[in-house]
Amino acid sequence: MTLTNVLCVIGKPVSHSLSPYLHSFGAHLIGKKVLSFKCELATELLPSFVDFVRRKKEFTGFNVTMPFKEEITRLLDSLSYDAQKIGCVNTVAKNRHGLVGYNTDWLAFRDSVRAREKWFESTLIFGAGGAAAAAIYAIQEAKISDEVYLFNRSVERFERLSKSFNFIKRWSAEKKIELLVNATPVEPPIDQSVFKNVKLVVDFDYSRKSNQLAERCSELGIHYIDGLELLARQGVEALGFFFGEKPKLDEVLQYLRRICECREKASHTAQ
Amino acid sequence: MTLTNVLCVIGKPVSHSLSPYLHSFGAHLIGKKVLSFKCELATELLPSFVDFVRRKKEFTGFNVTMPFKEEITRLLDSLSYDAQKIGCVNTVAKNRHGLVGYNTDWLAFRDSVRAREKWFESTLIFGAGGAAAAAIYAIQEAKISDEVYLFNRSVERFERLSKSFNFIKRWSAEKKIELLVNATPVEPPIDQSVFKNVKLVVDFDYSRKSNQLAERCSELGIHYIDGLELLARQGVEALGFFFGEKPKLDEVLQYLRRICECREKASHTAQ
Repeated sequence: MTLTNVLCVIGKPVSHSLSPYLHSFGAHLIGKKVLSFKCELATELLPSFVDFVRRKKEFTGFNVTMPFKEEITRLLDSLSYDAQKIGCVNTVAKNRHGLVGYNTDWLAFRDSVRAREKWFESTLIFGAGGAAAAAIYAIQEAKISDEVYLFNRSVERFERLSKSFNFIKRWSAEKKIELLVNATPVEPPIDQSVFKNVKLVVDFDYSRKSNQLAERCSELGIHYIDGLELLARQGVEALGFFFGEKPKLDEVLQYLRRICECREKASHTAQ
Repeated sequence: MTLTNVLCVIGKPVSHSLSPYLHSFGAHLIGKKVLSFKCELATELLPSFVDFVRRKKEFTGFNVTMPFKEEITRLLDSLSYDAQKIGCVNTVAKNRHGLVGYNTDWLAFRDSVRAREKWFESTLIFGAGGAAAAAIYAIQEAKISDEVYLFNRSVERFERLSKSFNFIKRWSAEKKIELLVNATPVEPPIDQSVFKNVKLVVDFDYSRKSNQLAERCSELGIHYIDGLELLARQGVEALGFFFGEKPKLDEVLQYLRRICECREKASHTAQ
C-alpha cells in the first residue's frame, strides 16, 4: 500500500468541519489521493503539532479553523502578502523552505461577491474575527464597497481590526446598507429595517441547522450566498496551494451540498 | 525545539474525548513530554491513517474509541491475547515489529470492581459493544460473577458476542441482579425493581451531563463507579504499554475530575 498525501484541518472544536471531505473529493478531481483527518488539539500543543507537520514529508499541508487562525501566523516559516495583511491564516502549505501560511477566505469572499455584482455603496459586517478581516481585506482590494460598518461585541477586537483597516466604522442604525455579511458562527441579530436597501447577503457560516437569515432573504427576494459556497471556494484555492492545481468549483460545491443533505437526513433519523 | 512523543485518540465523533489530557498529564507524571491530539477521520481512511502512524517514528501509539474499536483489529501487525479474545482494541502501541493492539478497558473494569468486592451472584450489562465485551471478558477471567445477562437492542450483536462468550444470556426481568454495568454511551433504561439486590453499579460513560444513574445509586446507597474512574484506569494501563511505565492512578483520576469540573463551569458560563 502506498501512503497518500496527508492533509488535515485543525480547530477546537473541529467536529463540524467538512474540510476532510473537501480535501478528499477535490484532490480526487485533480487525480490525487489524500488522507485527510480532523484534528482537535489543546492550544499549548499548537507549536509541537506545527513542528510535527513541518518535519513529516508526507504532509502536504493543512487547513486552520477557529480558534487557531491568528495564533498560527507566529508559528510558520513565512506568510503570503495577503495573510500578513489580514493577520489570519486558514491554509498552510509546504514549499521547499518550510511552511507557508495563506488566506483563501478573502479570495472566496471576493469571488463569490464578484460573481453577482461589482460594487455596493455600503457594507455591514457582523463579527470581527478572521472571517470579518478576510471580508474587509477583500472589500478593500477589490474595491467592492466604499463604506464598511462593523457590528460586533468586543470593542477591543474592533480596534485591533481598525488598526489594519482604518476605513471601517462601528455600525450605527441610520446607515443605508447594500451588502450584508455574517462573519460569525451564529445567527446574527438583524433588525428588519436594515434589509431595506440590501442587494446581497453573504454568510460565512455553514454549520447552523436552521437558518433564519437565508429564509428572510428568500422572503425578501434578496440574493443570498451561503457558507457552503464560501467553504467550497476557499477549499478550491487551498487545494491550489497544496497541489499547484485547482479542482472545478461547481463539482466541489455540488459534492459538499450532497454531504450536507446526507448529514441532515442522518441527524433527523437519529432524533 | 525537540519534537515530543506523538500520541492521539481516534474516533468519530471524538470531540468529547479526554484522552489527550490524560496522555499529556499521565506522561508528565512519568517524566515524558508528549504531543497528543484528537483525530476524527472517515472510516474508509482508517487503513491509511494506521499506515501513517506505523511509518512515523515519532508516533508512540494511540487510543481508539467508537466506532473504530473492532475495525482496527484487522489493520494491526499483532494483537494481545486479551484483545483477540475481546475482539476490540482501544490501545495501539509500537514495538520493533510494528503496531500491537491491546485492550485496557477490561483491565479498568476488572480492577475497579476488584477494588470494591470480589464476587457477585449475577450481572446485568446494558449494551453489546466494545465496552460490554471488555466487561464480559473481565468477569470471565477474574471470576467476578456466575451469571451474566445482557440487555441491548441488536439481536445480531448479542449473538456475535455470545459466540465468544457462550455463558451470557439475554436479560429477563425476574432475575436477581447484584452487579449492574452500563456499557452504552447513554442513560440506560432501568426499572426500579432491578435495583433491589444490586451491590455495585459500574458506568463506562463519562460524557453525560446529567446522570440519573449516579443519582439513583446515591439515593439507594449503592456504590457507583463512574466512567472517569474507568477512563483513568484504562489510560494508566495504556501509558504502561506506550512507555513501559505507569503513572499513579490517583493523580491521573484527580486531574481528570478537575478537567471535567472546569469544562462544566465553562459550559454553564456559555449558556
